[in-house]
Amino acid sequence: MSIEISSKDNAAVKNAVKLRTSSKERSEQSSFFIEGLRLCTDALESKISILQLFYTEPAAQKNHEAIQSLSAAAKDAYLVSEELAEKLADTVNSQGIFCVCEATKHPSFLENPGSGRYIALENIQDPSNMGNILRTTEALGLDAAILSSDCCDIYNPKVIRGSMGALFRLPIVIVPDFSKYIKKLRQEGLRPLAAVPDSDASKISAIRFFKGVVMCVGNEGNGLTEQAITACGERVNIPMSENAESLNAATSAAILMWEMVRAD
Amino acid sequence: MSIEISSKDNAAVKNAVKLRTSSKERSEQSSFFIEGLRLCTDALESKISILQLFYTEPAAQKNHEAIQSLSAAAKDAYLVSEELAEKLADTVNSQGIFCVCEATKHPSFLENPGSGRYIALENIQDPSNMGNILRTTEALGLDAAILSSDCCDIYNPKVIRGSMGALFRLPIVIVPDFSKYIKKLRQEGLRPLAAVPDSDASKISAIRFFKGVVMCVGNEGNGLTEQAITACGERVNIPMSENAESLNAATSAAILMWEMVRAD
Repeated sequence: MSIEISSKDNAAVKNAVKLRTSSKERSEQSSFFIEGLRLCTDALESKISILQLFYTEPAAQKNHEAIQSLSAAAKDAYLVSEELAEKLADTVNSQGIFCVCEATKHPSFLENPGSGRYIALENIQDPSNMGNILRTTEALGLDAAILSSDCCDIYNPKVIRGSMGALFRLPIVIVPDFSKYIKKLRQEGLRPLAAVPDSDASKISAIRFFKGVVMCVGNEGNGLTEQAITACGERVNIPMSENAESLNAATSAAILMWEMVRAD
Repeated sequence: MSIEISSKDNAAVKNAVKLRTSSKERSEQSSFFIEGLRLCTDALESKISILQLFYTEPAAQKNHEAIQSLSAAAKDAYLVSEELAEKLADTVNSQGIFCVCEATKHPSFLENPGSGRYIALENIQDPSNMGNILRTTEALGLDAAILSSDCCDIYNPKVIRGSMGALFRLPIVIVPDFSKYIKKLRQEGLRPLAAVPDSDASKISAIRFFKGVVMCVGNEGNGLTEQAITACGERVNIPMSENAESLNAATSAAILMWEMVRAD
């Protein structure tokens, strides 16, 4: 049974907006906010724990079955006025469906990393880039994403949307000391590669990929830190034309990941 | 000599904001708005005609030489108050430098397309995707971008920023009838390839690329039209893992373009 709410001062609504807008709140409450039919059902199917569901009457009429399933899974379900839905929505097309979910506790290391293929991201700051990279990581069939703890919050709504729900399905490891962890993987026999803009690095298309590879991609403006490059030991490069600007970080990551799997 | 303005009702400022926000205004006036030191100097270096320069006093102090060059090139230069600069700015970090530029008249066909390599975009709607694709097209050294006339406005500020100025340097052709033009290129001996999500299409990594190739990529949601696919005659695909969502359009385009040049 849903609770009907229409007051702007409702505590649950206020808290959902906080989770939408504040990374600090998300971290403190270990929960996050999503919107839209697709993402909410994606979360449900991925066995993400749904704490609260908010939906409008038109949404319930249009998506009867989905709202029923979400409502059954949610700890609390709220029927909200359209005015309140507008307050909750981050996008112009929210469809009047919103959930507050429990954040997954991401491990700080890979279990049995031996023969996997991984993307490792150091200090990626732009949520659109992060979302896009996670989407590509899943689509190309890599085994997991390794993130430095100073990357942007993966529960930022832009990351979740950009990832098209890949965030819910893809194994994600968040490591406190990026370079140290890369070094450890290398000692365990994996092959970490540092993506760098230097033309004296190995051309990425000249690398023969086997299993057990970690592709390391750095911050949008500054690239990988010196420590991370040293930890990798091997440097790779996407050759570019002379006049050109660099590639976008998510684009670079996509080309590098594609090279890891293209011969499959 | 710059004209000093501080009134919000100043016609030049009002017009610049219109050009920033309205595609219709850009089209009617054949001009567009850019902001930031980097893009403005990029435009100047690319011999884009600068109609108006707007800058703040702190910007002039910080970037003396650049403002002098821009001011010398601009038909009109205006020194604006910081309050007005905020009104002009689309981004949080505009640096207090803005230009209104004359739009390039893009041809509707390629001259001597014979041995070139091209990306052809049909109905790409998202300005961030468009900007990103143009940036990648330049960085990977393709010869030109062919755009259907129903793509988003390339002078949208998000396209210009996303392209990192590639828009000013890259040959761009805008064709009124996309499928007809692709068919024509095929008749002239070029090889147009239709990027499709169908697993029975040729795996992109199995294609041997020579010169004279046109890679066609379609709308974010709907892909290429049937007419465009038919005009190409050949279909290619990026293989993806089972559970996965599709790739982002700009990401797909990047992988496909990379395949065209990786053996160089």
